[in-house]
Amino acid sequence: MTASSTASSVLPPGFAEIPPMSGFGRAMGPWYEKTENGKGILGFRAGERHINRLGIIHGGMMMAFADVVLSEAQRRVTGRPSVTMRMAVDFVSPARLGDWIEGVGEVTRSTRNLVFVRARIWRGKHTLMTASGVFNFIRPRGEDGKPLPEQE
Amino acid sequence: MTASSTASSVLPPGFAEIPPMSGFGRAMGPWYEKTENGKGILGFRAGERHINRLGIIHGGMMMAFADVVLSEAQRRVTGRPSVTMRMAVDFVSPARLGDWIEGVGEVTRSTRNLVFVRARIWRGKHTLMTASGVFNFIRPRGEDGKPLPEQE
Repeated sequence: MTASSTASSVLPPGFAEIPPMSGFGRAMGPWYEKTENGKGILGFRAGERHINRLGIIHGGMMMAFADVVLSEAQRRVTGRPSVTMRMAVDFVSPARLGDWIEGVGEVTRSTRNLVFVRARIWRGKHTLMTASGVFNFIRPRGEDGKPLPEQE
Repeated sequence: MTASSTASSVLPPGFAEIPPMSGFGRAMGPWYEKTENGKGILGFRAGERHINRLGIIHGGMMMAFADVVLSEAQRRVTGRPSVTMRMAVDFVSPARLGDWIEGVGEVTRSTRNLVFVRARIWRGKHTLMTASGVFNFIRPRGEDGKPLPEQE
């Protein structure tokens, strides 16, 4: 085992695996999480399945991770399920195979139906991506197709 | 074989597989492409590996596909390799397991260093996502780290 493969298999302290709960999570994850000052910091190790033809992490993968980071931040604050309505990202710096990548989100506003979130994703001291998203709360629907009363 | 699994395995006329050229493409693809009026229409069949915990196509997957659609459009017009700098997407309607999803991009402006592209992604008559992106051309660098002269 080389030094670099050893480094790539080490999980930074405090992180625990989030059990994959979807086909996409099984194919692209696992994601890891730790709680710091009440916020959830997510992380993943960039692998072969994440890279593009240039050998850097695929933009789609970075956006998928940003989507997970943003939704996790909104879920922690509101406790409600939601779907992504809009998302905007800046690709600040590329990530490479073997990199340990982390991200954290922050709710900037929450209304009755919408929640606005922003996030930063980094590797070590380098910002890789900034993102912002708008999420729409999901309301369970009854058999008549009308939304059920709020359950909170 | 049931009617629905037959439907899910049919490739719409004119589409051919793009051989995966990256780890991400192998994990999430294949993508398919056909040329119509000089534009490249990309497509993929939504599978188990693309869905989120709600059973709809993961937002990250939709954004990854949008990224591929946008870059393919820019590559067709400029013939030059590029990386994504910014991207913004609207999730107009969700896609589901088994859906055949298509997308096409259009270059709105190209400068010496940047290219601006927009795209629409749909299923049948339903728009699923609109996206816009800014791409930065990649210039090969010499041993001194300075960009080489343009090769065109």
